[in-house]
Amino acid sequence: MAKIGFIGLGIMGAPMCGNVLAKGHDVTVYNRSREKMAPLVAAGAKGASSVARLVEHADIVITMLSDPAAVWEVVAETAGVLSALTAGKTYIDMSTVSPESSREIAAMVRKTGADFLEAPVLGSKKAATEGTLVILAGGDPEVARKREPILLTMGSRVVYMGEVGLAAHMKLIINQMFGTLLCVFSEAALTGMAAGIPAEKILEVVQNSIVGCPAIQIKGKDMLGEKTFAVHFPLKLAHKDMRLAVLAGDAAGVPTPVTAAAHQLFAIARERGFGESDVSAVLRALTDK
Amino acid sequence: MAKIGFIGLGIMGAPMCGNVLAKGHDVTVYNRSREKMAPLVAAGAKGASSVARLVEHADIVITMLSDPAAVWEVVAETAGVLSALTAGKTYIDMSTVSPESSREIAAMVRKTGADFLEAPVLGSKKAATEGTLVILAGGDPEVARKREPILLTMGSRVVYMGEVGLAAHMKLIINQMFGTLLCVFSEAALTGMAAGIPAEKILEVVQNSIVGCPAIQIKGKDMLGEKTFAVHFPLKLAHKDMRLAVLAGDAAGVPTPVTAAAHQLFAIARERGFGESDVSAVLRALTDK
Amino acid sequence: MAKIGFIGLGIMGAPMCGNVLAKGHDVTVYNRSREKMAPLVAAGAKGASSVARLVEHADIVITMLSDPAAVWEVVAETAGVLSALTAGKTYIDMSTVSPESSREIAAMVRKTGADFLEAPVLGSKKAATEGTLVILAGGDPEVARKREPILLTMGSRVVYMGEVGLAAHMKLIINQMFGTLLCVFSEAALTGMAAGIPAEKILEVVQNSIVGCPAIQIKGKDMLGEKTFAVHFPLKLAHKDMRLAVLAGDAAGVPTPVTAAAHQLFAIARERGFGESDVSAVLRALTDK
Amino acid sequence: MAKIGFIGLGIMGAPMCGNVLAKGHDVTVYNRSREKMAPLVAAGAKGASSVARLVEHADIVITMLSDPAAVWEVVAETAGVLSALTAGKTYIDMSTVSPESSREIAAMVRKTGADFLEAPVLGSKKAATEGTLVILAGGDPEVARKREPILLTMGSRVVYMGEVGLAAHMKLIINQMFGTLLCVFSEAALTGMAAGIPAEKILEVVQNSIVGCPAIQIKGKDMLGEKTFAVHFPLKLAHKDMRLAVLAGDAAGVPTPVTAAAHQLFAIARERGFGESDVSAVLRALTDK
Repeated sequence: MAKIGFIGLGIMGAPMCGNVLAKGHDVTVYNRSREKMAPLVAAGAKGASSVARLVEHADIVITMLSDPAAVWEVVAETAGVLSALTAGKTYIDMSTVSPESSREIAAMVRKTGADFLEAPVLGSKKAATEGTLVILAGGDPEVARKREPILLTMGSRVVYMGEVGLAAHMKLIINQMFGTLLCVFSEAALTGMAAGIPAEKILEVVQNSIVGCPAIQIKGKDMLGEKTFAVHFPLKLAHKDMRLAVLAGDAAGVPTPVTAAAHQLFAIARERGFGESDVSAVLRALTDK
Repeated sequence: MAKIGFIGLGIMGAPMCGNVLAKGHDVTVYNRSREKMAPLVAAGAKGASSVARLVEHADIVITMLSDPAAVWEVVAETAGVLSALTAGKTYIDMSTVSPESSREIAAMVRKTGADFLEAPVLGSKKAATEGTLVILAGGDPEVARKREPILLTMGSRVVYMGEVGLAAHMKLIINQMFGTLLCVFSEAALTGMAAGIPAEKILEVVQNSIVGCPAIQIKGKDMLGEKTFAVHFPLKLAHKDMRLAVLAGDAAGVPTPVTAAAHQLFAIARERGFGESDVSAVLRALTDK
Repeated sequence: MAKIGFIGLGIMGAPMCGNVLAKGHDVTVYNRSREKMAPLVAAGAKGASSVARLVEHADIVITMLSDPAAVWEVVAETAGVLSALTAGKTYIDMSTVSPESSREIAAMVRKTGADFLEAPVLGSKKAATEGTLVILAGGDPEVARKREPILLTMGSRVVYMGEVGLAAHMKLIINQMFGTLLCVFSEAALTGMAAGIPAEKILEVVQNSIVGCPAIQIKGKDMLGEKTFAVHFPLKLAHKDMRLAVLAGDAAGVPTPVTAAAHQLFAIARERGFGESDVSAVLRALTDK
Repeated sequence: MAKIGFIGLGIMGAPMCGNVLAKGHDVTVYNRSREKMAPLVAAGAKGASSVARLVEHADIVITMLSDPAAVWEVVAETAGVLSALTAGKTYIDMSTVSPESSREIAAMVRKTGADFLEAPVLGSKKAATEGTLVILAGGDPEVARKREPILLTMGSRVVYMGEVGLAAHMKLIINQMFGTLLCVFSEAALTGMAAGIPAEKILEVVQNSIVGCPAIQIKGKDMLGEKTFAVHFPLKLAHKDMRLAVLAGDAAGVPTPVTAAAHQLFAIARERGFGESDVSAVLRALTDK
C-alpha cells in the first residue's frame, strides 16, 4: 500500500484524511496549526515536523487547503512540497484553485520528475465524512487511473476530466451555477413572500419542481427563515469564483451576461458587509429585512 | 361521483382528461379543434357541442389551455363558461396564467355564485400521462379541500398555496428559476466546452453536483449536443414569464437583477429568431454555432 | 391673441405660465392648492374657481402636472377638462406621461371635437424660467403648426415628433439615457475615487471629454461631494421610467440589457430607502458612504 | 529648447508629432513601418535608425502606440527605450494602457534614473491635428509641471491627475462611460425607431437634451443611418476596456452592474463578428437589421 502524506486538516481535509487512514494506509499528516494534527495522530497517523519531511516519507502527497494562496505557499516555500518531490512520487492537489493556477503548479511539479493530479471535490463536510465526495480529476490519464484507488478512499465517484486545468474549470462551472441559482432563488422567493406565499410553500414546491436540487435543499430554509448564514462557503470566495467565471467566458469568447449580473449581486452583498458570511447571504443584497 | 366538464385537450389536457376518465368519472369534453375530442369520446367521454352546454352538464368545469388569452376567450365569450356557471358548480382553471389574470377571472366567476380554483401544474407531458403532476391550488381553502380528490386523479400531489393568485405566482417562480438556470447553464457549459471539457463530462458532473436537477436532466443533453430544441415550452412564452417575474419584483419592491439579465438574454434569443423554438434555445443568444 | 387656460402651477408650471403671461396673453390659471395661484394673479392672470370654468373661458388649455395620475384626474373628473372641451378649443398636455396614457387621453379629447397636442418638455426650472425649454410636440401636424407660437412663449425650440405618443416616447428615451448615464457615472467615479483620483479631477476631465454633458454638469458635483441629493426629479419616478423603457423595448422586440441593469440599480436604491431622493441618489445603491 | 524623440506615427501620433515640430522643436522620429517617417522628415524632423538611437539623441522621449503590447515591446526590447534612458532624460508614454501596466513601466524607467510621465489623451484625429487634445498627466508633480510646455504643443489643456496610474485610470473611466452610453443609446434609439420616431428626430432631441454630448454627435448619425461603423476605436479594444473597468470596480470594492451589462453587450457584439468594427457597432448586438 502506498504511503500517504496529507497536508491541510481543516473542515474538509480532516475527515478526508480520516477516511484514507481508515482504509489501512500508512498516513503522515501535516497542518500549519499543529493542534489539528492530534486527532489524526491519535487515530494512527504519524505527524510530520515539516512539509519537506512529510514529502520525503510519502509516495503520494495530498493537499486540501482553503485557497490558492495557501496552496502556493505550501508548494513553493523554502521547505515546501517542491523542495522534496522526486521522480516516482505523486502530488495531488484537492483544493479549489483556478485553472491557471493549477496549470502553473503542474508545470513546476513535473520539473521535479514527480507526477501531478488536480482533484477538486464536490460535496460538503457531510460527504467528506461519509466518503461520498464526487472527485474531479485532471492530469495525465495514466496517472489518474493509477491513483484512482486512493481517491476512492475519500469519495464515491471519480470523474476524469482531462488535462490539468479542466477539473479546476469544472469545479468553477459548478460554483458559477450554484452562485447564480442562489441569486435567482433569492429574487424569486423574496418576491413570492412579499406577495403572500409562505416560505415553506415556496421551498416545498421548488423542491418538487424541475429546478429542485441539493443547493436549495441545503440553503433554502435558512435563507427564507432564520437567516443565520452559517458559513460553509464564504461569500467573498463565491464572489471571486463568479469573477473567474466571467473572465473564463471572456477568454473563451462566450458572453456571460447572467453570470455577470450574479457576480455584481455578490459585489453588492459584499459592499453591504456580508463578505465573511455564507454564500447564501447574497440574499442580503436585495433586502435589509 | 361529480360530473366533470373538461375543456382543452392539447398536449397536457388530453392525458390529464384521460386520467380523470380512467378513474370512473362521468366526463364531458370540449375542444375548439373538434377532432381532438375523438380519442376521449372513444374512451368513454361525452362530447359537448359548446362550452355553455358542457358547463350546464357538469358539477366541476376544468380548463387546461395554452395561454391566458385562450382562457379569457373560453371564459368570457358569448356562450362561454361564465354564461352557464351557477351556484353549486366549481370552475378550476389549470392553465398557466398571471396572478392578476387569475384574480380577475376569480372575481367574475364568484359573481355567478360558483366556486373557483386556480390549479396550475408542474410537470411535462410524461407526468400528465402518468398522473404524477404536482398541482398548485389557489382559492378558498374549503373549496380546495373539497376538490382535492378530483385534482389527485391527475397528479400525485396537491400543494395548497393560499388565496387565488398565489398558485399562479408560484408557477411563475418556478419558470423564473428554470429560465435563469438554463441561461447560466448555457454560459457555463459553452465556456467549459470552449476550454476543452467534453459535453458529456459537464453533464455528468453537473448532475452529480449541488445544482443537479430535472431541468438539466431533461434539457442539457440536447443543448450541448444535437441542439434540436424540440418545443416543449416555447421560448417566447418563457420570455414573457421572465418579464412578468421582473414586474412582480417591481410591484413587491424586490430588486431582480439576475432575473432581469436572464429576461434580456431571452429577448436577444428571440431577436435572433428563436421565439418559436424551445425555451432551451436561449443558448443561441450566446453562440451561432 | 388666443385666451389661455393654464392648469398646474408647480416648480415647472409656474414659471412657464409666467412666460405666457409676460408675452401679453389673456391667461386664466387653476391649481389644486389655490395659494399657488396668487403670484400669477398678482402678475395679471385671472383665477378660475374650477377646471371646467377655466376650460370654458379658454381657447387653449394647458396642463403641466407632476404625474400621469394627476393628469387623468384633471382630465376625466366630473368637472374636469373633458366636461367643458368643445370643438375649436385645443388641449395641450405638457406633463410627462407614458405614450399609452397620452394616446388614450388624445382619443377622449378628440371625441369632444377639440384638438389635442402632447408637449412634454426638456429642461429644468431654470430653463422654464428663462423660457428656453426644448418642447417635444406630438399630434396632428396642422394643430402642432398652429399652436407653435404659444409653445414658443415657453421654450426656445419646438421639435415636432409625429403622432400622439411619439413625443412622450422621446421624453422616455431621454430619461432612459439620463438614468443609465447616472448609473455608469456613479460606478466609474466611485471606483476612480477609491483608486485615489480626486472628485474634482474626475468632474473636470469628464466634462472635457466625449461624454461631457449637462447631466454631469448639473448632478456630478453633488454626487461626488456633499451628496445632498436635493430633489429635482424623484428617484422613484426615474425608476418607473426605466421600467417603461424596458417594457417599450419588449414591445418593440428590442433587447435592452443595459437599461435593464440600470432599472435594477434604481430598484436597489429604492429598496435602500432613496425613492423620495433625487434621481442622482442611485449612487447610494453602490455605497453606504 | 528640449530635443524631442517621438515614437509611433499612426493616426494620432503623426499629427501630434507634427504639432511638436511646428513649434520649432528639434524632433527625431521613429516608427516600426519606416515609410510613415517620410512625411515628418520632409517637414524637418530627423529619422532615427533605431529606438535606442532616438533615445540617445533626445531629452524627452514620447511614445504614442496603439496598445499596451506595443508599448512593452518598444520599452523593453533589446535596443529599446530602457536600454538607452539615463538620468536627466524624461520618458512620456501617451498611449492608452492599464494603470497596472503604466505603474510597472514607471518602476522600470525610474531604475534608469530617468523621469517618467504617463499622458494618455482625450480626443480624436481631428483634435490631434488641431492641437486641441485634452492630455491627462500622471507622475511626479515636479516632472509634470516641468514637461507641461511640451505637452501643450499637442493639446489645449493638461490635467494633472496625480501619481502614475491615475491618468491611465481616468482614461479608463472615460472609455467606460463612453461604451455604456453607446449601449443605452442603441437600446433607446432602436426602440424609438421601432415605435415610429425618425432617426433624425431622435438625434436632434438627444443633442438638445441633458444627455447631449460629443459621443452622440460623432457616432449617432452613422449608428442610426448608414451603419458603416468606420473604425476609429475598435470594438474589441472597447470590450477589453469594459472588462478592465469591471475588474477595477472589483479591486476597489465598488459594484459595477451597469458597466458589467455593457461589457457583456460588447461580448455579444464580438461573438457576432463585430470585434474589428468600430466601437459603435455594439448596436449590432441588438439587431441584425
